[in-house]
Amino acid sequence: MSASAATPCAVLLGHCPDRKGINAALTRFVAENEGNIVDYDQHVDAEQGVFFVRIEWELPGFRIPRERLGDAVRPLAESFGMSWQLRFSDVRPRMAVFVSKQAHCLFDILARVQSGEWRVDLPLVIANHPDLGEVVRRFGIDFQCLPVAPDTKARQERAQRELLSRHGIDLVVLARYMQILSPDFVAAFPNRIINIHHSFLPAFAGARPYHAAAERGVKIIGATSHYVTAELDTGPIIEQDIMRVSHRDSVEDLIRKGRDLETIVLARAVWFHLRNRILVYNNKTVIFD
Amino acid sequence: MSASAATPCAVLLGHCPDRKGINAALTRFVAENEGNIVDYDQHVDAEQGVFFVRIEWELPGFRIPRERLGDAVRPLAESFGMSWQLRFSDVRPRMAVFVSKQAHCLFDILARVQSGEWRVDLPLVIANHPDLGEVVRRFGIDFQCLPVAPDTKARQERAQRELLSRHGIDLVVLARYMQILSPDFVAAFPNRIINIHHSFLPAFAGARPYHAAAERGVKIIGATSHYVTAELDTGPIIEQDIMRVSHRDSVEDLIRKGRDLETIVLARAVWFHLRNRILVYNNKTVIFD
Amino acid sequence: MSASAATPCAVLLGHCPDRKGINAALTRFVAENEGNIVDYDQHVDAEQGVFFVRIEWELPGFRIPRERLGDAVRPLAESFGMSWQLRFSDVRPRMAVFVSKQAHCLFDILARVQSGEWRVDLPLVIANHPDLGEVVRRFGIDFQCLPVAPDTKARQERAQRELLSRHGIDLVVLARYMQILSPDFVAAFPNRIINIHHSFLPAFAGARPYHAAAERGVKIIGATSHYVTAELDTGPIIEQDIMRVSHRDSVEDLIRKGRDLETIVLARAVWFHLRNRILVYNNKTVIFD
Amino acid sequence: MSASAATPCAVLLGHCPDRKGINAALTRFVAENEGNIVDYDQHVDAEQGVFFVRIEWELPGFRIPRERLGDAVRPLAESFGMSWQLRFSDVRPRMAVFVSKQAHCLFDILARVQSGEWRVDLPLVIANHPDLGEVVRRFGIDFQCLPVAPDTKARQERAQRELLSRHGIDLVVLARYMQILSPDFVAAFPNRIINIHHSFLPAFAGARPYHAAAERGVKIIGATSHYVTAELDTGPIIEQDIMRVSHRDSVEDLIRKGRDLETIVLARAVWFHLRNRILVYNNKTVIFD
Repeated sequence: MSASAATPCAVLLGHCPDRKGINAALTRFVAENEGNIVDYDQHVDAEQGVFFVRIEWELPGFRIPRERLGDAVRPLAESFGMSWQLRFSDVRPRMAVFVSKQAHCLFDILARVQSGEWRVDLPLVIANHPDLGEVVRRFGIDFQCLPVAPDTKARQERAQRELLSRHGIDLVVLARYMQILSPDFVAAFPNRIINIHHSFLPAFAGARPYHAAAERGVKIIGATSHYVTAELDTGPIIEQDIMRVSHRDSVEDLIRKGRDLETIVLARAVWFHLRNRILVYNNKTVIFD
Repeated sequence: MSASAATPCAVLLGHCPDRKGINAALTRFVAENEGNIVDYDQHVDAEQGVFFVRIEWELPGFRIPRERLGDAVRPLAESFGMSWQLRFSDVRPRMAVFVSKQAHCLFDILARVQSGEWRVDLPLVIANHPDLGEVVRRFGIDFQCLPVAPDTKARQERAQRELLSRHGIDLVVLARYMQILSPDFVAAFPNRIINIHHSFLPAFAGARPYHAAAERGVKIIGATSHYVTAELDTGPIIEQDIMRVSHRDSVEDLIRKGRDLETIVLARAVWFHLRNRILVYNNKTVIFD
Repeated sequence: MSASAATPCAVLLGHCPDRKGINAALTRFVAENEGNIVDYDQHVDAEQGVFFVRIEWELPGFRIPRERLGDAVRPLAESFGMSWQLRFSDVRPRMAVFVSKQAHCLFDILARVQSGEWRVDLPLVIANHPDLGEVVRRFGIDFQCLPVAPDTKARQERAQRELLSRHGIDLVVLARYMQILSPDFVAAFPNRIINIHHSFLPAFAGARPYHAAAERGVKIIGATSHYVTAELDTGPIIEQDIMRVSHRDSVEDLIRKGRDLETIVLARAVWFHLRNRILVYNNKTVIFD
Repeated sequence: MSASAATPCAVLLGHCPDRKGINAALTRFVAENEGNIVDYDQHVDAEQGVFFVRIEWELPGFRIPRERLGDAVRPLAESFGMSWQLRFSDVRPRMAVFVSKQAHCLFDILARVQSGEWRVDLPLVIANHPDLGEVVRRFGIDFQCLPVAPDTKARQERAQRELLSRHGIDLVVLARYMQILSPDFVAAFPNRIINIHHSFLPAFAGARPYHAAAERGVKIIGATSHYVTAELDTGPIIEQDIMRVSHRDSVEDLIRKGRDLETIVLARAVWFHLRNRILVYNNKTVIFD
């Protein structure tokens, strides 16, 4: 994480079948065009025979202008059969947050956006309850309340997607939004919807995980942030963390302590996403940290 | 944990329906008989309405001799409908360890017994493979190899139980013993068989949890020690701990790192048991730490 | 932590020279007056020979009215030479927060107060910079900016103390307030000023601890919340936590990651204080958690 | 960590002033000689302007035979002003362990060596007390007791160094060896002596850290493994970890709990060293994990 925030960089993320010479070809490409690599991270999954890479290099002084960079990378990547993405560190993504009634994750996100810790725009918060509207509007952010019931769900999702489209949203963060998105919605934002689940998945998937944890008598509770896929609570895990609990903790204590876990685990996942540090492969994440 | 190891103490563990006056009655009982309480820990589970208590007081100077102490406690406990156990800190329990081929938990246990960290006798190790026999015998401990196959399991369990009986075993520790004990065996040692499972239960119960963890792409792995009950991997959890992992860790790395987790989580559970700090209620543990 | 938030309780915190019969006398006092104990926690420091206790019992149904409770406890406590405090769980303390320019701890506190997680009133924020005024005022809280320079420090402290007095403040929280309070100020709020220091004390006391940590090449960073005493960074520690770092983390990364640590470690300390769970003795804390 | 243990690999570790093209030159060198890179990890310290790298590639199929590899790497490294080391994964280092009376770290090391977890030979244990001799000899390892007193220290160090020389020792592990080595001794094994200190350095350097921790009332204790340098407890930190403690823990509890910390933190450091994953620069470590 040594790149200065001030210097704009290109970031290439890719994966392909492993073979000799990929590192050499990629680094030569950057070097021949006078690029200064600030971060180079590669990983080989020996069991699956897959090569993963993230290269970040400075744009100033690089011979290929950014608008032609994709065209320049393409033949190189294709020669290795590489799936790849190109990002630029000075582009500010646009994020929407979905909430329900609980404020802790939302509040934390507002703080990180407002303080400039995160390089992101947050123009839109969508809720299925009106409770958090006042706080959101204090920050000058558009707050849209779209209550969801079984018979209105399809219609409300259309409204949600129209709002996302109108605001040019790149990333959706479900900050304890208690509704399940339809497969269509999810398919429209592949690896661009981040959810926080209040257990260490795969334990206690589904509803009321703290109650289930108390019932089972576990000595640790956890939280899991993941990309949302069509199947509930089974998407690629981005980050997890845990906290020790004991018999002295009632369900209410677990809920209270868990809020802090949820907040931090969601924030770390969004951070990795915003910094272009996540590759998804085979329903798992490679986090180039 | 302020009791000096040197002074013999009585330990009363109990639970009963919660009501007013239990603390007063128990502490008065000790005080009236000139007992010096070195540790008093109580817990009320408000949801279930259950009172849990552990009292540890010094035996020297206490007016009731230890052999009559049970009789003295009984009417008091019965007046509250209390389930109770009485232990003495200077009694050395007798422990047997069951192993298979893996050495790490066994080695750690041998070290703790040999160094005197644990106040316990370890006269017997039972294995279903001969591999660890040489190490065990170096420590002057009886090593019995009883290979288990589907058609010999019942016979071998009889042999195991006879060995346990002959050695006067109080506590059985399954130190990565890869066999499932029969319900009959388990019923003969209620809350006296401790197992280590190599996942953070309830996630990844059953076989090959590290492979399942790698497959799911979790960011933490765990280990769980629990009392063995008739149903696999669902007994009362005593202790759990976790370790961060990443995409860089292969299944072999998880297995290697997990060994350290298993070792420490099992050791902590045995420690709590040996110090008479565990109460089991409703398939959960209260750990008076 | 099983006491229902709804039922008002009395909390007795005390410490005295250890001897036989204290537990019995205290629990009898509650029982004889028809009190229902919801939490009883005691600790004996065997090395120092000191007995510590926290008793929490329900006020409804208790025979002694709360306004006479102190008088009733006094002779009992005096008979053991006990230093004691009596608190009531339904009293809302009044808290002031001191800040400088950094927002993360303040934001977190605002969220916990606003959501009702903390039972406390927050009428006043004092800052030595104007930066956070806008956010604080959005929450309807009095924001007072009192810049401090060497020659104005004494005068500004008088202004601060007058504000605290006018708002009836019980607890001062230094949420990354970068000024040192005078011994006089500190003496006026014994064990009622909580600070967050951005290192695992006693390592890296003083200024710029993250720079010092990076310079030393540590593999963990920490944060420490403590009561403020006249000597810098040496007051009784309430809570600490840590985070793993690596050579990949620049000083800026440490500062960024550390913010999350500071936030949570300060919040936990304030929580313990507000719940009347801290006893200070010999410059150390007993946390009845 | 994806390299198969079975395939012999070359490992190049190096650091040099950062500039463009280093990655490209190094990876081209491997690719042009038909090397298959199994792990490539680089790091740029932007503040110091230093480039760090670790490359691991398979020897089978590589065109340059291992005995000529150093000569082949030299001009390339020199062109960048790189300090470098070349290692081979199939070479078994030879390790000596220094102990005093405490067994926990030694026991753990014996278990890891015996089980084959560590690829290392352990022909020699040196002690300043005879206590652990019996255990060591059970494993067929040479145990040499060399008691150290102020007036015999120089002579005993000569004897120690002669033993190390005779056994062809590459790595010395101080497993709670309570003596300080002379600067001469240390200078003879630069970055090849690993010590475990029982605190989270730089807190509680020097003697009796658990007593100091209890005196200060910290809420976490730690352990630190580091390379030994001439100045006490200030060498490059390799690994640290911590454990939560509370007022309930006496000094004896801290010592007992700390043993587990010391054991694991030392083991992780030795593992990194044995896997050629540590670069030392500016009294800090880069751990390529």
